[in-house]
Amino acid sequence: MIKDLFKGIRAGDRFALSRAITMVESKRPDQRAEAQELLIRCEEVVKNPLVVSVTGPPGVGKSTFIEAIGLALVEQGHRVAVLSVDPASQMSGGSILGDKTRMAMLGRSAQAYIRPSSNNNQYGGITTVSRETGMLCAAAGYDHVIFETVGIGQSESDVRFIADMVILLLQPGSGDELQGYKRGVLEQAHLLVVNKADGEQQQLAEHTRLSFETNRMMVDQIWQQRILVASALSGYGIPEVMNALSEFGQLDLVELRLAREQDWFRWRTEDLIRSKVAEMLAPEIKSLLQDMEKGTLSPTQALFRFDELLHERLD
Amino acid sequence: MIKDLFKGIRAGDRFALSRAITMVESKRPDQRAEAQELLIRCEEVVKNPLVVSVTGPPGVGKSTFIEAIGLALVEQGHRVAVLSVDPASQMSGGSILGDKTRMAMLGRSAQAYIRPSSNNNQYGGITTVSRETGMLCAAAGYDHVIFETVGIGQSESDVRFIADMVILLLQPGSGDELQGYKRGVLEQAHLLVVNKADGEQQQLAEHTRLSFETNRMMVDQIWQQRILVASALSGYGIPEVMNALSEFGQLDLVELRLAREQDWFRWRTEDLIRSKVAEMLAPEIKSLLQDMEKGTLSPTQALFRFDELLHERLD
Repeated sequence: MIKDLFKGIRAGDRFALSRAITMVESKRPDQRAEAQELLIRCEEVVKNPLVVSVTGPPGVGKSTFIEAIGLALVEQGHRVAVLSVDPASQMSGGSILGDKTRMAMLGRSAQAYIRPSSNNNQYGGITTVSRETGMLCAAAGYDHVIFETVGIGQSESDVRFIADMVILLLQPGSGDELQGYKRGVLEQAHLLVVNKADGEQQQLAEHTRLSFETNRMMVDQIWQQRILVASALSGYGIPEVMNALSEFGQLDLVELRLAREQDWFRWRTEDLIRSKVAEMLAPEIKSLLQDMEKGTLSPTQALFRFDELLHERLD
Repeated sequence: MIKDLFKGIRAGDRFALSRAITMVESKRPDQRAEAQELLIRCEEVVKNPLVVSVTGPPGVGKSTFIEAIGLALVEQGHRVAVLSVDPASQMSGGSILGDKTRMAMLGRSAQAYIRPSSNNNQYGGITTVSRETGMLCAAAGYDHVIFETVGIGQSESDVRFIADMVILLLQPGSGDELQGYKRGVLEQAHLLVVNKADGEQQQLAEHTRLSFETNRMMVDQIWQQRILVASALSGYGIPEVMNALSEFGQLDLVELRLAREQDWFRWRTEDLIRSKVAEMLAPEIKSLLQDMEKGTLSPTQALFRFDELLHERLD
């Protein structure tokens, strides 16, 4: 069964790949052993794909940008998997803007695979199994895996566990808004792209690029941050983005990836710990919640009591 | 010692309050017992303050807005504590925009207390001890506690553990960017304020308000979301914001607060669990990381091995 699924993935069968991703994303315990077997098989055979995260604030044009670089990669002979955020799953009903057809051209390419993220992907793009879904895509022959991530919150910090290269898209005129970005977001971006540089916005975009240019930093000790101006819609600046991608892909990433895997491992162990112990202490948590409801313990007292219990049980 | 600190806080001594907040934010184990004692003393004497979170994307004018409503609250006879994000701590060196004087007028009021968040506040405004720092402010006699939070990430979801009322600031023209917001951010906002409605932006702001108006939702089952237009800079629309604040403050919040405290308790237990068990399994984690480095275990294999270990140790 897993053997057949593995064969299907390796043969480039998209349905097999989609089924495998669903299995790996599943929280059902009976799927866990099978998912493990599949992942270990895949890990044995795959080479590392170049994993790129495209991130930025809402409305900056991430999906248009991803389509543009995806199509350019396909033209260069690459195979591209896009793990995207499904806007419909982000709003209740998804009806505010209606259904946009996202990445329609890229979706028609035989060399591309687009997968919208699942509904339980709360944090805008990176989940605890993102590394695994990327590996499945690699096993299916995709040499570039692109994650679309949203916003500047948790998923921005989780991105560094998953992606080789981080591209941050910015709005023209957003230089002054820098003060609101937290340290990590800018410092981890290998490439800043001021997008939407078309029509009247072009001059403003160039101005924004210059305001960032004076604050460029080293990212990962092997890469000096670059700042480009582009319009994913018109194609302006996309060749320069492709050059940066290609140069980054030619770096020796072995040490970087080892460090990233170690960070990923620590991050995942924390997650496993949390769910395991929460399950183990569920009765105690329930009883303390009842005490809070009855008013016999204040929230502060209940938490201190839990802290004591945790130490009694685990020390 | 704690008795004196408690007395100082109750007497309205700002230095005592600041020292207490530093103590509660400290991760030093020797401060833990003292912090617990202080918090339990405070919890016994305080009434619930109205806790407001002011949130929104970078550059939307959060600190100007907070200053405007803070000054208006003081004029109404309230005492206001603001737990704000220090922009200097968010960027390396903090020098990109230079030092802005934030909330200077509010800072001069004897009825207001402004505390920039600590440097280790990575997630833009809400930390695991935010409830506690709010309680200390309440014990010092502040009847309104305002948290400034940044961005649309983790702190946006954590806000619901802390705040009674959530105010989301929006840029004029940002209606189309809605698709990028994740479900929770909009749905949990009691009040949307399209800020910066001055000069040429006023008409656009009004248009943005209308685009949100058709999608208003119930928040917390007792409050229909409101959408207002304001300019914190000119004061336009601030009286309407104050009306909304005052009406919200007159609601019966008992049930809401109980539900929120229960969510807060679950959230905090998860955090305690994570740090405790990570400490307990530190040797195993270290040894698996070494196996990964030597290449005897792949990342996937190491994680599965850890999962087994976790079950062996805790079952």
